[in-house]
Amino acid sequence: MDLKKKVSIAVIRRLPRYYRYLADLLKMDITRISSKELSNRMGITASQIRQDLNCFGGFGQQGYGYNVELLYKEIGNILGVNDKFCTIIIGAGNMGQALANYSNFESRGFSLKAIFDIDPELVGKKIKGIEILHMDALEEFIKSNKVDIAMLCVPYEYTPELADKVARLGVKGLWNFSPMDLKLPYDVVIENVHLSDSLMVLGYKLSEKLKNK
Amino acid sequence: MDLKKKVSIAVIRRLPRYYRYLADLLKMDITRISSKELSNRMGITASQIRQDLNCFGGFGQQGYGYNVELLYKEIGNILGVNDKFCTIIIGAGNMGQALANYSNFESRGFSLKAIFDIDPELVGKKIKGIEILHMDALEEFIKSNKVDIAMLCVPYEYTPELADKVARLGVKGLWNFSPMDLKLPYDVVIENVHLSDSLMVLGYKLSEKLKNK
Repeated sequence: MDLKKKVSIAVIRRLPRYYRYLADLLKMDITRISSKELSNRMGITASQIRQDLNCFGGFGQQGYGYNVELLYKEIGNILGVNDKFCTIIIGAGNMGQALANYSNFESRGFSLKAIFDIDPELVGKKIKGIEILHMDALEEFIKSNKVDIAMLCVPYEYTPELADKVARLGVKGLWNFSPMDLKLPYDVVIENVHLSDSLMVLGYKLSEKLKNK
Repeated sequence: MDLKKKVSIAVIRRLPRYYRYLADLLKMDITRISSKELSNRMGITASQIRQDLNCFGGFGQQGYGYNVELLYKEIGNILGVNDKFCTIIIGAGNMGQALANYSNFESRGFSLKAIFDIDPELVGKKIKGIEILHMDALEEFIKSNKVDIAMLCVPYEYTPELADKVARLGVKGLWNFSPMDLKLPYDVVIENVHLSDSLMVLGYKLSEKLKNK
């Protein structure tokens, strides 16, 4: 079923959330759910849900609701959960180690192949069975292994140069944790994680709440 | 200037990004910028920028552009950068330690007051001069100190109960790192960080790219 073309990036950004909720429903042995019920759980309108899920064809049936397992699988397919991406982490500081220990990446199709750092105290250690290699081995590793995604967890000032190097070596996906919108003159996909942006939005909402007391 | 009422949450979510770009411009001693120029840097349309920034009144002048410092300050005010929020981190694993070491939170108005964990190997250690306290001390700490925001970095299964406890003790802002949409029956502000959602969107875009080759 090649329905992806019709789906906007705004809908795509909501899909992982549906995927999470559907996984929870499966765990609870719930096999079907109405858009109304899903709406109550997720806190978004039933009409938004119907509109989003209609993009992928007929999973919902009037009076029956959605088949949870079918919908879960199809959203997984669309998101590429079965594509098995090979990933590496560059920078084994706290953030890099946190990502290496994240247990739900593997089940979502992201397989960690190597971790790199320059710190001699870290190099040679293992996280979840995966050895931390020296940065000097990075180029050779990328050249001789399939690496789809590099997770960049190095300090801010090193990020642009490192990202450039990794992209030139042929890595097509970059997950950036430095507080910058990484841009590269290559044909790569970049997803930036901006933790301080999220914290500032929390701060804003909190200010508003305290002022309206 | 009380213009906040008019501003939608969609605009608010974009403000930290403006704030970052304006900070970079200030560092480069750029004192004014046109919406066109800002648009080129940020990769969003000039009309979107004008529309967003018009929410806060007359910072842009036809033929002059925006006063960078003024706009930076005003966006900071709106986001509550000067409100000085007191924060605590609960869970001093890798993610908690990564947050404790994040240097740009302080400059954005978030002041870390304490870190909590149950691990005897961690309790008593210091991160950036802040001691890791035992979880047993949490309740007393919140009761006798101003705590605006709790950053929750404990394992998934402990998060709901901990969030409930912290909220009942009067903490009004929760920053959640567990892959769940935290919901509480109290009047609190919750901001969820979903790292695996971000990674899945990257995976999706990468699948698309590889298929269209």
